[in-house]
Amino acid sequence: MSSMETQSEQVRPRKGARSRATILHAAAELATIAGLNGLSLAALASHIGMSKSGLFAHFESKEALQLATVDTAKEIFDSDVIEPISEIENPLEQLRALSDAFLSHVERRVFPGGCFFISASAEFDTHPGPVKDKLLAFQAEWSERMEQLIADAQKRDLLRADDSPSQLSFELTSYLLMANTAFVMHNDPTYLEQAQNAVRRRLESLQGKASTTRF
Amino acid sequence: MSSMETQSEQVRPRKGARSRATILHAAAELATIAGLNGLSLAALASHIGMSKSGLFAHFESKEALQLATVDTAKEIFDSDVIEPISEIENPLEQLRALSDAFLSHVERRVFPGGCFFISASAEFDTHPGPVKDKLLAFQAEWSERMEQLIADAQKRDLLRADDSPSQLSFELTSYLLMANTAFVMHNDPTYLEQAQNAVRRRLESLQGKASTTRF
Repeated sequence: MSSMETQSEQVRPRKGARSRATILHAAAELATIAGLNGLSLAALASHIGMSKSGLFAHFESKEALQLATVDTAKEIFDSDVIEPISEIENPLEQLRALSDAFLSHVERRVFPGGCFFISASAEFDTHPGPVKDKLLAFQAEWSERMEQLIADAQKRDLLRADDSPSQLSFELTSYLLMANTAFVMHNDPTYLEQAQNAVRRRLESLQGKASTTRF
Repeated sequence: MSSMETQSEQVRPRKGARSRATILHAAAELATIAGLNGLSLAALASHIGMSKSGLFAHFESKEALQLATVDTAKEIFDSDVIEPISEIENPLEQLRALSDAFLSHVERRVFPGGCFFISASAEFDTHPGPVKDKLLAFQAEWSERMEQLIADAQKRDLLRADDSPSQLSFELTSYLLMANTAFVMHNDPTYLEQAQNAVRRRLESLQGKASTTRF
């Protein structure tokens, strides 16, 4: 322990930066199992094999740790789910790819307890404050992206505008939420396939000319 | 405090039964805010204004309290959501009524943090054990009911059998899960309406003869 501390003092800037990133990555993973409220400095220190005083040097309070953990989870989510699909030019194709990327993110267990933001939102939904505000901002960004893609697809006649972007975004997000929740609970990929079927067929139902059977 | 204990000893059998039900009702409500893991005997004792030793007389462990709380939540859910609709003879009507009853259950905040079972499942999804087993049993019962109603409606030609009961049950349950989650997070009933729209129109899309635009 004392030799580690000596080492960390020798190369403090790089080591400090790397340690902080390492701590927050571990914290984001742990939070999807133990909850963001389960992230006591003591539990986290024990989880990553670091002294509690070493952790205190990085985070001044439990809430500061929680907020930094949410930011790290957002970076991981964006680089895993959003960035790879954001250059797809066709909005309908991007919508399908966004859904597939999310389901793959869950299936690959990038976070062991499923989507970090679904897990954390379930924990903080009745607890107003800075952590919930960050989770709300994530959800707003998700909804805006979905609704914009739907509106763009409607403008370009790739989807009929039978439904408002808000209603269709609600439905597509429902399938993804359910897939995450059921996959984590039952450890069964069937739910991911059911969500993929649901998204594809819901979008197909809005392609081509209107039929007499409107959805 | 000591006068309360004296009183409770005088009428122990009835008072004990009433107390246990009262404690468990409060515990089920508190669990949707603080989590089932937040149900420490100390926190619950303070919440309901009872001594911790008084609580210990009712429950021998935290897990025993959690299991009894899940049973109480199930009784509340069944009497609020399931029993009122279970006598509806037409399976398609019962399916619609089940969805409406669930959304009303959420909107009336029978539990302050939304559906008890969604809340508890999000907390226990990565924690195998007797509590998770009870939550899985609830979900299995829900899915079986939904799938049976869908299969019955298909048999009676009230719904086209374009989709398996399992796929359609997944989609309908998705809307309800999303409604609960978004309503609690945003405190906005718009999400309940969006779920109701989604359920109705998904069922309508499967009524009447098949069109060229299959959903």
